[in-house]
Amino acid sequence: MERIHLGTSAGYGDRMGASVAAMPLDLPARSGVVEAAERLRGHIVRTPLLSVAASDRPLFVKPEMLQRTGSFKIRGAFNFVASLSPQERARGVVAYSSGNHAQGVAASAADHGVPATIVMPDDAPPVKIRNTERLGARVVRYDRAGGDRVAIASDIAAETGAVLVPPYDHPRTIEGQGTMGLEIIEDLADRGIEEAVVVVPTSGGGLAAGVALAAEGQRPHLGVYTAEPATHDDFRLSLDAGERVEIDPPAPSICDALLMTIPGEVTFPVLIDRAEGGVVATDEEVLGAIKWAANELHLVVEPGGAVGLAAFLAGAVPGHLPVVAVLSGGNIDPAMLARALS
Amino acid sequence: MERIHLGTSAGYGDRMGASVAAMPLDLPARSGVVEAAERLRGHIVRTPLLSVAASDRPLFVKPEMLQRTGSFKIRGAFNFVASLSPQERARGVVAYSSGNHAQGVAASAADHGVPATIVMPDDAPPVKIRNTERLGARVVRYDRAGGDRVAIASDIAAETGAVLVPPYDHPRTIEGQGTMGLEIIEDLADRGIEEAVVVVPTSGGGLAAGVALAAEGQRPHLGVYTAEPATHDDFRLSLDAGERVEIDPPAPSICDALLMTIPGEVTFPVLIDRAEGGVVATDEEVLGAIKWAANELHLVVEPGGAVGLAAFLAGAVPGHLPVVAVLSGGNIDPAMLARALS
Repeated sequence: MERIHLGTSAGYGDRMGASVAAMPLDLPARSGVVEAAERLRGHIVRTPLLSVAASDRPLFVKPEMLQRTGSFKIRGAFNFVASLSPQERARGVVAYSSGNHAQGVAASAADHGVPATIVMPDDAPPVKIRNTERLGARVVRYDRAGGDRVAIASDIAAETGAVLVPPYDHPRTIEGQGTMGLEIIEDLADRGIEEAVVVVPTSGGGLAAGVALAAEGQRPHLGVYTAEPATHDDFRLSLDAGERVEIDPPAPSICDALLMTIPGEVTFPVLIDRAEGGVVATDEEVLGAIKWAANELHLVVEPGGAVGLAAFLAGAVPGHLPVVAVLSGGNIDPAMLARALS
Repeated sequence: MERIHLGTSAGYGDRMGASVAAMPLDLPARSGVVEAAERLRGHIVRTPLLSVAASDRPLFVKPEMLQRTGSFKIRGAFNFVASLSPQERARGVVAYSSGNHAQGVAASAADHGVPATIVMPDDAPPVKIRNTERLGARVVRYDRAGGDRVAIASDIAAETGAVLVPPYDHPRTIEGQGTMGLEIIEDLADRGIEEAVVVVPTSGGGLAAGVALAAEGQRPHLGVYTAEPATHDDFRLSLDAGERVEIDPPAPSICDALLMTIPGEVTFPVLIDRAEGGVVATDEEVLGAIKWAANELHLVVEPGGAVGLAAFLAGAVPGHLPVVAVLSGGNIDPAMLARALS
């Protein structure tokens, strides 16, 4: 496995095209998470925190497959689009995504009356492509092996003036995702729990960074673990190394939403100062967790959304504190669900 | 199909053993639903109302598979057990159920430190029997064809002094189930909806009666439809006839939770004055709804819990008002789920 060590620069926007780089270069902050929660109120599902009797260690799950568009991604996308000026909105938005961010951006754009173009890989789950189109977005497909989605999206942004909606590496995206952390803390407090750890499925790190910011200085105390496919453990390695580590995955993973190979430039600095560490799960463990969630929780989870639960069920979450497993999405293709249940 | 016409007496307890008959013979009322909500606060899941883009007609679902024990039944069971005197609780409780009431009673009894015995048919879904035992209850099994579960439970009540927890035909049970109606009305009001219909999976009628009581005189206005398997349409026939009609089902149904053949003596008078009518769905339609719920809603529904959604998807819900489909439970055996998804 080739590993390229990079710096921990907090710069962002360098790969995102001129339209985004022109926005103010602030840092994500807890106050921004609180502002995002105000913007999102009434536009997203306030998902419950469900208590699960799984073992002696208390377990809660945060079922974000019940979120609008079937994953948490609409939190960050909505907050970003809502933060654009009327002039920026009039130019439309563009995004690249294997599926969940695509749907989040499409729905957020539709809510604001903004035209959206989404660049999606040919091998994205058909259900995610179909749902994105259903939400009114134009979908531009590319070959994951040969195409450069960032370049395609940047070209569209340059040609049309559309604003690129970053999937994770932007303060407004991160703060939007962080609203989930506020909900978790509120619901743990209602249950009288003073300390817990939250296990967050992680690709670029937007959700984990947002939750970590939401938890900063709060009671109950919430320790954050990133959760990744064992083959795509760049966050675990980077948190251990104290700097961004890029990996060259030895194999693909069924977790189609979690195929990043390097932590984000904005998300990593947030997490290196705040996260407890990283956990991983194998594809087999993920399939087992999908089956377990269907039978025990009555919830359909997609592979990437189940990786934190899989790590918990495998006993890979350190310590003895109560665990919150974020089930970050449910957009699984029926064939994959059937495979997991068999 | 043999149909026996019976009276609409509001009496109850006559088949429930002396322990229950000794309780005050009041009628279920909206005020009791509000009191039940206070008792249940913090002990049950406040399930969300989820908006679904299924067709031009607005659809919401109430996902009670996310409720503790995987169905709404704990609402009524908890309210009943919580209403018992310390002396009654000390004697323990007994119940008969094919599964969801069993788990609701077991969990409610455990919450109150009360020993519980549950009489369950041999052919109840294994997952429901296993879960009931896991919750600490003693399970007594009987042959559905040859055994009389009411007699068995009454014998246990007579021998041990245990109080029988009625599955539907008791004011405290009905009022507990009705707490779901309060939540639906609150969430519809938050969305600015002034009028809707709710489709309620119905066996003995406790949930439908409770929701109808909760809705009484409220804004938004909520019209109540019972939903039954097409083979077990005693409520639809009884609501049409204006009196309790007993049926002799021509065939079994996969909806194991909805196999009653006559409306309850307490629930029917509540509903004949308040329900809009009854809708039905075939087993094939129910299987289709289970598959649809898994793929579109990311929720696992049991057959009986999907009958209202199945009726909606089949276009069987009259009128054009927004529809709330109650998904009343998720305790489906894996083999049945695999069948529905195939």
